[in-house]
Amino acid sequence: MKEEIKKVEEQFHEYMKKIKSYGEAIGVMYWDLRTGAPKKGAEQRSEVIGMLSSEVFKLSTSEQMAAFIAKLGNHEIQAYISDITKKSLEECRKQYELNKKIPADEYKEYVILTSKAESVWEDAKNKADFAMFQPYLEKIVEYNKRFVEYWGYEGNKYNRLLDMYEPGVTVEVLDRVFGQLRERIVPLVQQIAASPNKPETAFLHKHFPKESQREFSLAILEELGYDFEAGRLDETVHPFATGLNPGDVRITTKYDENDFRTAIFGTIHECGHALYEQNISPDLIGTVLCDGTSMGIHESQSLFFEKFVGKNYSFWKRNYDVLKKYASGQFDDVALDDFYRAVNQSQPSLIRIEADELTYPLHIMIRYEIEKGLINGEMEVKDLPQIWNDKYEEYLGIRPNHDGEGVLQDVHWSGGSFGYFPSYALGYMYAAQFKKTMLQDLPNFDELLESGEGHVIREWLTERIHQYGSMKKPLEILNDVTGEGLNAQYLIDYLEEKYRRVYELA
Amino acid sequence: MKEEIKKVEEQFHEYMKKIKSYGEAIGVMYWDLRTGAPKKGAEQRSEVIGMLSSEVFKLSTSEQMAAFIAKLGNHEIQAYISDITKKSLEECRKQYELNKKIPADEYKEYVILTSKAESVWEDAKNKADFAMFQPYLEKIVEYNKRFVEYWGYEGNKYNRLLDMYEPGVTVEVLDRVFGQLRERIVPLVQQIAASPNKPETAFLHKHFPKESQREFSLAILEELGYDFEAGRLDETVHPFATGLNPGDVRITTKYDENDFRTAIFGTIHECGHALYEQNISPDLIGTVLCDGTSMGIHESQSLFFEKFVGKNYSFWKRNYDVLKKYASGQFDDVALDDFYRAVNQSQPSLIRIEADELTYPLHIMIRYEIEKGLINGEMEVKDLPQIWNDKYEEYLGIRPNHDGEGVLQDVHWSGGSFGYFPSYALGYMYAAQFKKTMLQDLPNFDELLESGEGHVIREWLTERIHQYGSMKKPLEILNDVTGEGLNAQYLIDYLEEKYRRVYELA
Repeated sequence: MKEEIKKVEEQFHEYMKKIKSYGEAIGVMYWDLRTGAPKKGAEQRSEVIGMLSSEVFKLSTSEQMAAFIAKLGNHEIQAYISDITKKSLEECRKQYELNKKIPADEYKEYVILTSKAESVWEDAKNKADFAMFQPYLEKIVEYNKRFVEYWGYEGNKYNRLLDMYEPGVTVEVLDRVFGQLRERIVPLVQQIAASPNKPETAFLHKHFPKESQREFSLAILEELGYDFEAGRLDETVHPFATGLNPGDVRITTKYDENDFRTAIFGTIHECGHALYEQNISPDLIGTVLCDGTSMGIHESQSLFFEKFVGKNYSFWKRNYDVLKKYASGQFDDVALDDFYRAVNQSQPSLIRIEADELTYPLHIMIRYEIEKGLINGEMEVKDLPQIWNDKYEEYLGIRPNHDGEGVLQDVHWSGGSFGYFPSYALGYMYAAQFKKTMLQDLPNFDELLESGEGHVIREWLTERIHQYGSMKKPLEILNDVTGEGLNAQYLIDYLEEKYRRVYELA
Repeated sequence: MKEEIKKVEEQFHEYMKKIKSYGEAIGVMYWDLRTGAPKKGAEQRSEVIGMLSSEVFKLSTSEQMAAFIAKLGNHEIQAYISDITKKSLEECRKQYELNKKIPADEYKEYVILTSKAESVWEDAKNKADFAMFQPYLEKIVEYNKRFVEYWGYEGNKYNRLLDMYEPGVTVEVLDRVFGQLRERIVPLVQQIAASPNKPETAFLHKHFPKESQREFSLAILEELGYDFEAGRLDETVHPFATGLNPGDVRITTKYDENDFRTAIFGTIHECGHALYEQNISPDLIGTVLCDGTSMGIHESQSLFFEKFVGKNYSFWKRNYDVLKKYASGQFDDVALDDFYRAVNQSQPSLIRIEADELTYPLHIMIRYEIEKGLINGEMEVKDLPQIWNDKYEEYLGIRPNHDGEGVLQDVHWSGGSFGYFPSYALGYMYAAQFKKTMLQDLPNFDELLESGEGHVIREWLTERIHQYGSMKKPLEILNDVTGEGLNAQYLIDYLEEKYRRVYELA
């Protein structure tokens, strides 16, 4: 009996390896499409990606998979199989159940649709032409609404989509924590707007050649412990990190020659994602667990680095001179304190990925409310430009001039990612909560950054979070690391303390 | 009945699309591995490629494939199926039969053997130690001899292997044309060696920065009609062209800062391959016919551009000033005529891939004679170093100092590629034959190059060759285009005329 189980277990691992292999091939092709694949081959490439994705879909919903779930899920044999097998099986079962409920043809059409929609979106965004993208988005929303019905849901329909990215988090939880955040952030943003102590920021916008920004980005990646033998840095319209396997975790960034912050803080953000994936335990390679456990935990790692490292005073105490070396002289007469205040400027703005850390959660809330509205049939795609602009005016007091800097700014919807945006805000709250715990172990956090020993911070995160991949669920990690559930208070305290100090508020 | 056939035909096309999709994914990953994938991910990536390759093998030898061959190959229904289906089926049947006739276990052992042999070969080559490689090569030859028996053959045993790369070409044909070539080239090479009119070549080796070579290469690609919206140029250790689909045909090159010819003529060569694949008819996308029809015809396109365009006087009349613009002054005092003579220098050398166009066919003949001898049991692996060196002395008048620059120089045999080498020389003869016919339609060939209207030449080739992909067999194309079978005379005439002129021989 035991030997037979071992055999099935091995077959299951071989089967997962195949699924992961297809996934890796798809990952390479996506990366390639975005970093420089010739445009005329894109349509055919989308077909290939569609074909492989539908193979993954078939493998994850096959009778063979059903047999693995039945055999290895049997309670009597749990003592004989490894933890990795158990957790992998759990993941596979979840996918199996989600996928079995969608008709195979419909899923294939959807994959082809979203892969085409991404290039249409890019074009539409450049031309600030929502009408170009609208028919694609309408179809994508329709598919998602249909999928929610196929899957079934508890409470709000949107809960079903949230669960894909952040198991355990619901509309009820989000309404509560977003309410708490909004209650404290909106008045703080208003106080800052009224404050006379605004930082000088003109020097941030002096010309900074792309090539030098790239070199500085590479130097910072090195400093943060990004492993270049297991990754590379490229340029894309929308920055991302992609973990093909722990030995190949690539990041991309975007350069704005008149605002170096886009590239540098974007790179640090993606580096946080990459450090997570580069440091997953090698035991998990070839299994479905070799991945971040949720979007929110993933985002907690990227935001941890972007905000708590990249926007930290001690970090710049160390790296300001390095920046000056690569820059074109614009910082030479600027004191470190003034530089620090400038990069921590808070000002309502239109573009999410360029938003400062204080106003950022408001950008997320707007997207959250729109997604919830679309999925529940309370909003229509054609009205989005108007809705979007109105909400920006309401929450942030500013209005986009065109849809390229408005509703078309993010790639997510073109890829069908609904329920994803809240992860960014969740990740931010998780990160603040991790930081609070980390300070108990590493009270010298700031000194570590100042002396270039950031690796100690990375190791703390690897030991508690990275190495597990998807072996633990997000709220399980949060509890194991911090000893409590989701608590928005740590983020609120951090923002209050920091921005009152930066803006010298009462 | 007709409707049922249509349905099977559609299923067959869908099935091929899957095979081609896997092939395209593998192609992207190979390209990626060679152009800059992070080193730590390479082992896992090889596993992924292996996994997908074995899927392709399974698909091409499956019962499903056997059923397609039986159903669609039925004589009674030939009138109902499209030409594309017929030719695709023929290709699939050929692969099916080749793969099915070898016992699965033996094939697996062979794959393991060749994959080990490749790394042993690399080591042996670096150490110039043939004894290291000998036992592997012996086994590889034994397997190939056995495979030939499994497959069956007509006439010479080596015909079976030639047919894999160049269907229709036999030992009888090659003995004839290689005999004709040898008879004229060997004396010509000797006359050149004795000639006092050697070109001055020192300026070819002046420092030429990589970035400028790249810019010049891009300018030349543009001039030759390479479509950058359907391709890109990258750098690799070994240059190649890869047609992922007609909308994405990438080329790579290698830069030697002390010999710009490596990059520029290499780029033009790969451009010839790429123009073939970029211009295959879109009707063939997704079928097994969307590919060059044979190694020889492929090579005819790359050599056409490398030799008849890239080494042409009128081409340089137009482009010499462009070269000067990108270069670092080394050509400023060199007259066009002297430059032309220099890049057309001919000199016996030991390394095939560095050989000039006149001596190149001799390198191929040596390999051909050895392969034929091995497969027919007339030579033994242990004697190869001696045989190799003797033949180099006989044909080229020079003798390798060690096996690293002799019998161990090429990778082909370690991978089991026997029958491939002749394609290089065949491509050269095809190219000369195409050129002869082209001159009847485009007697102003030289003027077209001089006035930058090379696109007319590309269009001529597309109309007669490129568009067909693998719809026509190599000798069918040759006949349709030139009105005759393989004729070595055109290449001989070209070489005689050109080299007598360049070296001012009587």
